[in-house]
Amino acid sequence: MKKIGVVLSGCGVFDGAEIHEAVLTLLAIAEAGAEAHCFAPDIPQMHVVNHATGQPAEGETRNVLVEAARIARGKITPLGKADVASLDAAVFPGGFGAAKNLCSFAVDGADASIDPSVETFVKAMHAAGKPLGFACIAPAVAAKALGSASPELTIGNDAATAAGLEKLGAKHADHSVTEIHIDAENRIVTTPAYMYDASIDQVAIGIRAMVKEVVGMVG
Amino acid sequence: MKKIGVVLSGCGVFDGAEIHEAVLTLLAIAEAGAEAHCFAPDIPQMHVVNHATGQPAEGETRNVLVEAARIARGKITPLGKADVASLDAAVFPGGFGAAKNLCSFAVDGADASIDPSVETFVKAMHAAGKPLGFACIAPAVAAKALGSASPELTIGNDAATAAGLEKLGAKHADHSVTEIHIDAENRIVTTPAYMYDASIDQVAIGIRAMVKEVVGMVG
Repeated sequence: MKKIGVVLSGCGVFDGAEIHEAVLTLLAIAEAGAEAHCFAPDIPQMHVVNHATGQPAEGETRNVLVEAARIARGKITPLGKADVASLDAAVFPGGFGAAKNLCSFAVDGADASIDPSVETFVKAMHAAGKPLGFACIAPAVAAKALGSASPELTIGNDAATAAGLEKLGAKHADHSVTEIHIDAENRIVTTPAYMYDASIDQVAIGIRAMVKEVVGMVG
Repeated sequence: MKKIGVVLSGCGVFDGAEIHEAVLTLLAIAEAGAEAHCFAPDIPQMHVVNHATGQPAEGETRNVLVEAARIARGKITPLGKADVASLDAAVFPGGFGAAKNLCSFAVDGADASIDPSVETFVKAMHAAGKPLGFACIAPAVAAKALGSASPELTIGNDAATAAGLEKLGAKHADHSVTEIHIDAENRIVTTPAYMYDASIDQVAIGIRAMVKEVVGMVG
C-alpha cells in the first residue's frame, strides 16, 4: 500500500491546519487505496486565535504537533523524525498554519522564513523525486522551500498572493476551486481549496483530484 | 434549501467532537443539497486532553463553543440561541465530547446528566417531529434526552455501551460501521462511525447514509 505523508500545521483555519482540507485529504487518500501518515513540526504556534470571535487569544500558547494530533486522532509523528525513504509522497493541507507555523508567508510575504524540519522534509522529498501536493495557501511552503526549482503552483486567482509566491521563485497559474495545477517536472500538484469562499463539497472536488493525481504519480 | 443543524461538542476525539465525523457530516449535508448551521453549547469542556500523548492537560481549560468554532470555520451559534423553528433537522457527530460535554455518559453511564441547552434543543426538535441524526457515541445524548420515547439506536456492537443506552430507556440494534439504524416513529437515524476501529472511508459511508436519510425525512 502506498504511504502518503500528510503534513499538518495545527488544528483550525485561523492559526493551524484548515480542518476540512485536512480531513478531506485523509478521506481522499483512503479512497485512493493508499495509507496516510500524519506529521507536524513539534514547535509552538505563531498565534492562538479564538475561532468564535476571530480575535487573538492573548497569553495562550499551543504546540503545533499537539493540536495537529486532534486531526490525526493521536496517530502523528514529529516532522523532524519523518523517514523520507519510507514515504511514497506527501500532501500539505492549507489553513493559516501553513503560512504562520510551517513558514511565515502570512506575515512576512516574500521575506518569509521556514521551519527547518519543514524545509528539510520538502527538499528531501523533492530531491528523491517523490510527488508533493499542496492545498490552499500551503503552496507558499513549496515556493519558499523549492523556489530555486521554479515550481508551477496555484493558489487560485488572488493576484497579491500569487505575486508573493512569484517573488519566491514560483510561477503562478490561476485555477478555480475544483481544479488542480500539475507541475509534471517538479512532481508538484496544487489546488486552491478555501483560498476561495467556497462550499465544502467544491473544496472536496479539488482536494480529491489533487490527492488522486499525487497518488497516481507514485511509480 | 433545507437547513440542518450540526451540534458540535468541541474539537478533538478525546475531549470534543470527533473531527472526521464532524467534517464528513458537513460534507454529506452539502452533497445532499442542504445547508449546515453549526451550534455548540457555550460551556467549559469537561477535560482537555493532549491528543499527542492521550494524557489530560492538567490545569488547562477550554470552552466547547470556542473550540467547536474551529471545525465551523468561525460560523457557529451558541446552542442556547438555536431557533428550532428555522431548522429542518439536526445531526450530532460523535467523539468523547458528545459523552463528556453534551452529556456525561462517558463517566456516569446510566446516571448521566445532560447540558440543559442540549436537552431543551433535542426535546424541542423531537416534539416538532424534526428528524435527528446521531453518530458514534452521540446516541447517548438521544437516549438521555428522549429515553421516555424508547428510541431505537445503534452505537455499533459494544455490549456494555449498548446496555448503558438501554438503561436510559433506548432499544439498541447492532450494526456495522457502514450501516445506519432508522427509528421511523421517532424520526431518529444513527450510525456507529468510530465506535469501530474503522478507516475514514468506511466511516464516511455510514455518515453519508445517515445524513442522506435525515435530509430525506424532511417533509
